[in-house]
Amino acid sequence: MTNAFPFSAIVGQEEMKQAMILTAIDPGIGGVLVFGDRGTGKSTAVRGLAALLPPIMAVAGCPVNSARAEDVPDWANLKDSGLIEKPTPVIDLPLGATEDRVVGALDIERALTQGEKAFEPGLLARANRGYLYIDEVNLLEDHLVDLLLDVAQSGENVVEREGLSIRHAARFVLVGSGNPEEGELRPQLLDRFGLSVEVTSPTDIDVRIEVVKRRDAFDRDRDRFGGAWHADDMALRGKIVTAREALAGVEASENMLRDCAELCVALGSDGLRGELTLLRAARALAAFDGAASVTRDHLRSVAASALRHRLRRDPLDEAGSTTRVARQVEEVLG
Amino acid sequence: MTNAFPFSAIVGQEEMKQAMILTAIDPGIGGVLVFGDRGTGKSTAVRGLAALLPPIMAVAGCPVNSARAEDVPDWANLKDSGLIEKPTPVIDLPLGATEDRVVGALDIERALTQGEKAFEPGLLARANRGYLYIDEVNLLEDHLVDLLLDVAQSGENVVEREGLSIRHAARFVLVGSGNPEEGELRPQLLDRFGLSVEVTSPTDIDVRIEVVKRRDAFDRDRDRFGGAWHADDMALRGKIVTAREALAGVEASENMLRDCAELCVALGSDGLRGELTLLRAARALAAFDGAASVTRDHLRSVAASALRHRLRRDPLDEAGSTTRVARQVEEVLG
Amino acid sequence: MTNAFPFSAIVGQEEMKQAMILTAIDPGIGGVLVFGDRGTGKSTAVRGLAALLPPIMAVAGCPVNSARAEDVPDWANLKDSGLIEKPTPVIDLPLGATEDRVVGALDIERALTQGEKAFEPGLLARANRGYLYIDEVNLLEDHLVDLLLDVAQSGENVVEREGLSIRHAARFVLVGSGNPEEGELRPQLLDRFGLSVEVTSPTDIDVRIEVVKRRDAFDRDRDRFGGAWHADDMALRGKIVTAREALAGVEASENMLRDCAELCVALGSDGLRGELTLLRAARALAAFDGAASVTRDHLRSVAASALRHRLRRDPLDEAGSTTRVARQVEEVLG
Amino acid sequence: MTNAFPFSAIVGQEEMKQAMILTAIDPGIGGVLVFGDRGTGKSTAVRGLAALLPPIMAVAGCPVNSARAEDVPDWANLKDSGLIEKPTPVIDLPLGATEDRVVGALDIERALTQGEKAFEPGLLARANRGYLYIDEVNLLEDHLVDLLLDVAQSGENVVEREGLSIRHAARFVLVGSGNPEEGELRPQLLDRFGLSVEVTSPTDIDVRIEVVKRRDAFDRDRDRFGGAWHADDMALRGKIVTAREALAGVEASENMLRDCAELCVALGSDGLRGELTLLRAARALAAFDGAASVTRDHLRSVAASALRHRLRRDPLDEAGSTTRVARQVEEVLG
Amino acid sequence: MTNAFPFSAIVGQEEMKQAMILTAIDPGIGGVLVFGDRGTGKSTAVRGLAALLPPIMAVAGCPVNSARAEDVPDWANLKDSGLIEKPTPVIDLPLGATEDRVVGALDIERALTQGEKAFEPGLLARANRGYLYIDEVNLLEDHLVDLLLDVAQSGENVVEREGLSIRHAARFVLVGSGNPEEGELRPQLLDRFGLSVEVTSPTDIDVRIEVVKRRDAFDRDRDRFGGAWHADDMALRGKIVTAREALAGVEASENMLRDCAELCVALGSDGLRGELTLLRAARALAAFDGAASVTRDHLRSVAASALRHRLRRDPLDEAGSTTRVARQVEEVLG
Amino acid sequence: MTNAFPFSAIVGQEEMKQAMILTAIDPGIGGVLVFGDRGTGKSTAVRGLAALLPPIMAVAGCPVNSARAEDVPDWANLKDSGLIEKPTPVIDLPLGATEDRVVGALDIERALTQGEKAFEPGLLARANRGYLYIDEVNLLEDHLVDLLLDVAQSGENVVEREGLSIRHAARFVLVGSGNPEEGELRPQLLDRFGLSVEVTSPTDIDVRIEVVKRRDAFDRDRDRFGGAWHADDMALRGKIVTAREALAGVEASENMLRDCAELCVALGSDGLRGELTLLRAARALAAFDGAASVTRDHLRSVAASALRHRLRRDPLDEAGSTTRVARQVEEVLG
Repeated sequence: MTNAFPFSAIVGQEEMKQAMILTAIDPGIGGVLVFGDRGTGKSTAVRGLAALLPPIMAVAGCPVNSARAEDVPDWANLKDSGLIEKPTPVIDLPLGATEDRVVGALDIERALTQGEKAFEPGLLARANRGYLYIDEVNLLEDHLVDLLLDVAQSGENVVEREGLSIRHAARFVLVGSGNPEEGELRPQLLDRFGLSVEVTSPTDIDVRIEVVKRRDAFDRDRDRFGGAWHADDMALRGKIVTAREALAGVEASENMLRDCAELCVALGSDGLRGELTLLRAARALAAFDGAASVTRDHLRSVAASALRHRLRRDPLDEAGSTTRVARQVEEVLG
Repeated sequence: MTNAFPFSAIVGQEEMKQAMILTAIDPGIGGVLVFGDRGTGKSTAVRGLAALLPPIMAVAGCPVNSARAEDVPDWANLKDSGLIEKPTPVIDLPLGATEDRVVGALDIERALTQGEKAFEPGLLARANRGYLYIDEVNLLEDHLVDLLLDVAQSGENVVEREGLSIRHAARFVLVGSGNPEEGELRPQLLDRFGLSVEVTSPTDIDVRIEVVKRRDAFDRDRDRFGGAWHADDMALRGKIVTAREALAGVEASENMLRDCAELCVALGSDGLRGELTLLRAARALAAFDGAASVTRDHLRSVAASALRHRLRRDPLDEAGSTTRVARQVEEVLG
Repeated sequence: MTNAFPFSAIVGQEEMKQAMILTAIDPGIGGVLVFGDRGTGKSTAVRGLAALLPPIMAVAGCPVNSARAEDVPDWANLKDSGLIEKPTPVIDLPLGATEDRVVGALDIERALTQGEKAFEPGLLARANRGYLYIDEVNLLEDHLVDLLLDVAQSGENVVEREGLSIRHAARFVLVGSGNPEEGELRPQLLDRFGLSVEVTSPTDIDVRIEVVKRRDAFDRDRDRFGGAWHADDMALRGKIVTAREALAGVEASENMLRDCAELCVALGSDGLRGELTLLRAARALAAFDGAASVTRDHLRSVAASALRHRLRRDPLDEAGSTTRVARQVEEVLG
Repeated sequence: MTNAFPFSAIVGQEEMKQAMILTAIDPGIGGVLVFGDRGTGKSTAVRGLAALLPPIMAVAGCPVNSARAEDVPDWANLKDSGLIEKPTPVIDLPLGATEDRVVGALDIERALTQGEKAFEPGLLARANRGYLYIDEVNLLEDHLVDLLLDVAQSGENVVEREGLSIRHAARFVLVGSGNPEEGELRPQLLDRFGLSVEVTSPTDIDVRIEVVKRRDAFDRDRDRFGGAWHADDMALRGKIVTAREALAGVEASENMLRDCAELCVALGSDGLRGELTLLRAARALAAFDGAASVTRDHLRSVAASALRHRLRRDPLDEAGSTTRVARQVEEVLG
Repeated sequence: MTNAFPFSAIVGQEEMKQAMILTAIDPGIGGVLVFGDRGTGKSTAVRGLAALLPPIMAVAGCPVNSARAEDVPDWANLKDSGLIEKPTPVIDLPLGATEDRVVGALDIERALTQGEKAFEPGLLARANRGYLYIDEVNLLEDHLVDLLLDVAQSGENVVEREGLSIRHAARFVLVGSGNPEEGELRPQLLDRFGLSVEVTSPTDIDVRIEVVKRRDAFDRDRDRFGGAWHADDMALRGKIVTAREALAGVEASENMLRDCAELCVALGSDGLRGELTLLRAARALAAFDGAASVTRDHLRSVAASALRHRLRRDPLDEAGSTTRVARQVEEVLG
Repeated sequence: MTNAFPFSAIVGQEEMKQAMILTAIDPGIGGVLVFGDRGTGKSTAVRGLAALLPPIMAVAGCPVNSARAEDVPDWANLKDSGLIEKPTPVIDLPLGATEDRVVGALDIERALTQGEKAFEPGLLARANRGYLYIDEVNLLEDHLVDLLLDVAQSGENVVEREGLSIRHAARFVLVGSGNPEEGELRPQLLDRFGLSVEVTSPTDIDVRIEVVKRRDAFDRDRDRFGGAWHADDMALRGKIVTAREALAGVEASENMLRDCAELCVALGSDGLRGELTLLRAARALAAFDGAASVTRDHLRSVAASALRHRLRRDPLDEAGSTTRVARQVEEVLG
């Protein structure tokens, strides 16, 4: 698993890397949606995220990685058990995973051999306190995406099927990659992702050569390449841990709230999720920067990620959503 | 569960809050349908409802929350059991719930281990004497919405499947939220909801800031925020309990009945469900206001909620249904 | 069950009430199809029918309510058993009922525990000698309606499935309600209902007030309201019992047969089911009126119910089918 | 079962009655397809056919009604058993019959309790040496009709499913009724029926009165009505038995064969099934008439039934197929 | 089975009979596709083929008719067993055959009773070294036809399903009949049949009479008719056996190969299957004729059968494919 | 299996043969997609590949052909076991293979008999360290192709279904053949194949004759034909083994990387997979040629295979993708 391409060795793609760092600091920002052409390294980045994330303390053997013994669910049937350090879970939802393996289901083996109706947790349980990654989220059936976003938002997996009636904690950041050319997500679903980022192939020849060179080096000797970038990855991890601790103390003034509101009203984004996400992402960025309070610069840096997927289509404005956000940011924030 | 955003702390959205209070006073008014753009706090309100509702007395262990020992269904297999106080049930129908978990089904475990055909109650049983909440009701299959409305209206769940032939009490208020931009409900289904309300994002900057401020405060420290609003919630609960007791004594004069009828005829609403709902909602509001009888003011206050979803589409009238109701209310009630 | 709105307390809707009374006198007339807008009390009427119907004598414990011990089916496995009085069955086909529960199926419990292939009767068995009610019959799949009409007409339920080969008596009147705005029944199916009636919301304000007043009184105290109308219901039951006995003796002259034939030819109704139904319905009405023979008045009273759903669509005639029947009745019967 | 409306009491509908009599004399003619409007007594006729048919001698207990002990299939597991007389089987394919009950299937009971793979015969087995009736054959799925015609034509039911590999005799005449207004059969299927007949409602008032009178008399007292027509039915049965014996001796001259061929070529009917059916039907009619050889009159009488469903649609000829056959019969046969 | 209409008694249809004889001599030519109107005796011919084919020597009890003990598959569990003579298998794929019966499947009986995963061979096993006949091949689902052609071509049935992983020999000639008016086969599938033939109804009156006369004679007394043609059938079988032995010695000169190639290039047939089939069919015909080497006459005789179903549709050439082949044959072969 | 047509005996089709050789040298290049008309020998080539490939050393009995004892998966339950030589696996995905047999599934036999949840590996396990061949890959469902490419690319099969949670190595080269006339693959899928090649029927008469001659010789005596070409096949195998060892030492200069990047930018191919594949394929070709470093000639030779399936459709450029690649190769590489 540590065999992934190092996060720090990714050339460019700053917006995507920022989004991942911010949700690592404050998972409450919500999921990240990564749009991009084929071959732009979307999955590479997510797979590299694992090595970057700080480890967690969890009850040994707990199927939902509970931080405290009293949070271990009854159905886990777990006797007294100490705490252990484990990597932040980054769970990959493989193609063809069946719904029962995602949400959990009746444990067939125990049903058949012991005649009892036990719950067998699914990927949502394993993802608790971590990340759930879905490649080509736009190819999933809407109802499954809906379900995943529902759980991600409520932090709880409610299972009512096959005679089971179970709930367990399932707090995770959903990271989905998608190709805008292949089917779109419904606006209703888009709005429920916290941040969205766009990745594109570099057009500069030298950058391209650098990307290919690093990738080729990685493919030919993964261990050596990983070793060369390990220190950079660990330094970034350290900054994230520091930012997490600072987060609660970062202030956001009334003026900043007003800026958020005015920006969203100017952009005509529906609902208030835009404002909330903008505020939280800016606060996380402030913490990452070591700032004591949110500034207009922080808002500016995260505005596109937080708002671009919440705009109503405007038939009179042919500009892309990134441009539209940039224009209003300039107008409102100066 | 008491971790929800406090009902009293919701900014604005008066019509939605009124509808929920009225059905809490008289569940016979029927279900509530909440329409609104994404991000307008529909689910927040419903989840906040739970803390607001007065507790009920129920037979301990009864799967349908029976108020009296003689109402406990046979299939519950419940020995003598005393009464206990429990919160008014607010049952959440999770996405992906299977029909067997909604209506109840054969208990597979008992069928396999003991070879007997026992009934395992579903969400409809648990919702008896309470609320059943469905997010994005327009995404459910019609036949399931139909079934839910059928049960809600008859107050009885009739199960004829898998060799089972069971009936049990299932009196609950169905609360559904929906987004008018994503598929519509059939008129046939609309008519079977008692009240409908519309919620929109506030456009006033200061209101938006207040909403974001409260939400951010809640997200950062749920306990402290909940504590600050607890007294308001409890005061509202007290008013509801008082209104319930007063309800039977509230009079509705012949003139009021005539007003209801004339308003419905003027609006051209099909059937008589409009008049009945209007009358009951006005009577509940009168009880909430401590009035001895229904007045035109009560009718005016609830007319939009009770009638807006029962209008026939009028191709010559471009006004929205809310405007059309308002216009006739002025004309008929003065 | 006696908790239903009393049949006698229904305001207006004379045609629907007549159709139900006639099929109570002579079930051979066939099923009744009730068309109407939403909220016009279709289900109320059918549910009120139960209290009105005279009780039957049946073998105790017989799954098909047999009148004589020799008619009890073999598969019922019933030892000598006396006769008991029981209410005329009015079986409600709930939404979501599965086909196996309608026609009957293999008894899974006995198959699993005793390894034997026993038949478990369905709703069609229970409905024998009574009524089967389907709300929104137009929402059922055609093949199920077809099957129900087939059984209703032949009086026998033939089951050939899951290795079972069973027949049992299933004589019942099928009552279906439907909304003409939501999908139509195939002409083929329409023709197999004996009578059809249309119900509409009253437009007279005073009538509407009366309806709402009665409904509100019922909703607020079902027992008191039911008590107030009990005598009227019982008087009507008495008239039906008397009419049943008189039915065999009511004469229909050659002239009456000729009137039936001429009316049907004039209306261009296909087949001869129209004539037969018209004759039987008129004879039942004569019995209800205490008349010794069928008269033109009887034909006039039932013509619309018996014929309106059997007309071919006439593209040159914009009049509704009720008007077309009325016009020919005047022309042919004077 | 003898409770059916007597075949002899059917008013008119001569072509349909002839077709049924001819296939009773020579089942090799093939199936009969009855087209007609709703309410024209199609099912009545087929159900009346049962009483008319001569009994057969069959091995007692044999599931395929074998005439000789050596024809009883192995899987029947039948010990020495004598011959008994039983009514010609007329099997009704009920709506909703599952394919396993039609062709036969694995005997689940024996599989579960004795762990052996036994064959449980279906309706095709029971129909051997008799009739199989399907109401509204056009509503069946094509592949099932195809399968039924395949078996009817080959006289053998070949089962290759669920691990079974069984063949048994299944010689029967398939009688299907259909409504031309509701979906058509593919030409491919039409061609495989031997005869087709059209039935229509009578338009003559006196005939209609006679039909209604007889039907009403039957409905009011089935036993008395059946008794009154029993002798007529038995006389017809006698004629059929005599004709069967005479059949092998009836000659068809070269000229008659030439007439058949010329008629079919003139009509442009595809293939040679038309000629063969025409020949066999005419020969059966000759036997019924007691004639020693086939004459042009016999050909004329059966031409429409044998050929009308085998014509190619001719876009330049607006005449119905019955008219087109009649025209060529006159031209070719004079 | 010998009850079929004798192959030799078929009037005309020379191309179809030739195709069947050639594949009997060299099964490597591939499958035969028979196109034709309804009623043209397609199935009759195939069913008659059985009596014509020479018997084979096979290991007694071997489920795939192996010629040598060492070829019997392991899963057959067959002890030492001698060789027996048995008829060339002609397996009929009945309508409604399930895929598990075609390719073989898990033996449910052994799985249930002995808890072991045994293979139960299907029709493809039984067809090894013989013929597999499918009536109306165009009505089969594409994926099943594809699978059958795949097996027919590779001579091996590979089963990967239900936890089984089995391969066994399945060398057979696939004969399919189809009606061009009912759905077409994909070009991809067409190309994989070796030969295709067209059959039509005779238009000559005397020929038609002869056909009807023979068929009527057969229907009235199968044994006598079969006896009359037995010698002809056996003579044909003898010629086929002789040709098989001669086949390996028949030469095809470089010139003949060039003719094949030029004909195919001129016709623009894709791929090289056309040339190969043409060569093999011509060589088989030479063997049947007792010739020492392939001549242009042989090519001419089989060109239409071998090539007509491999032409690309040519929008500028309205001629049918038979005509187009004939034209080029004349041009290229003179 | 060695019964296949020898790879060396294939006439022409150089691009296809090169692609197969290159992926045999460096499986990391990715899958090969073979496009071509019917009958152009696509499957022949792939089936011939098996004999060509060098054998591998693998743990005896290991279901995933592990090279080292420590790589054998736990679920294989394999005791100490030595290494054996076995042929490079070439697994054929047969038509109709079910998904459970592809990815592996619950072992039903062990579940039923021993009540334990064991994993039964599928075709992906067997293909580890070898090839997986799919004929007509465009006929597979997209989600299955997606899954196969996902596994091929990650080298790991992740199974989350039926209560199983398993991962195992699955490094293989996916070879798919397709017909461009029958449905296309989504661009998203195309891009994930490493190389694509086009095969066409030869148009030169002499070449066609040679192909037919060789094929005919092979069909008539496989052993003799195979023997004649064995030495050629083994020589090719030797060159591949040598190239594999040389591969790691082959240099690619900065200039070569720049050529790759400029060619891809000029062609406007999305993403960077094009550059990476081009580089790796060229390096493998250099190794095959015994060169010490990659040259422009190597790039030129593999450019079409590596890039043609990654071009965006250009509505202004009617040239096929092969031509467009050739044009830019000339421009960029001179």
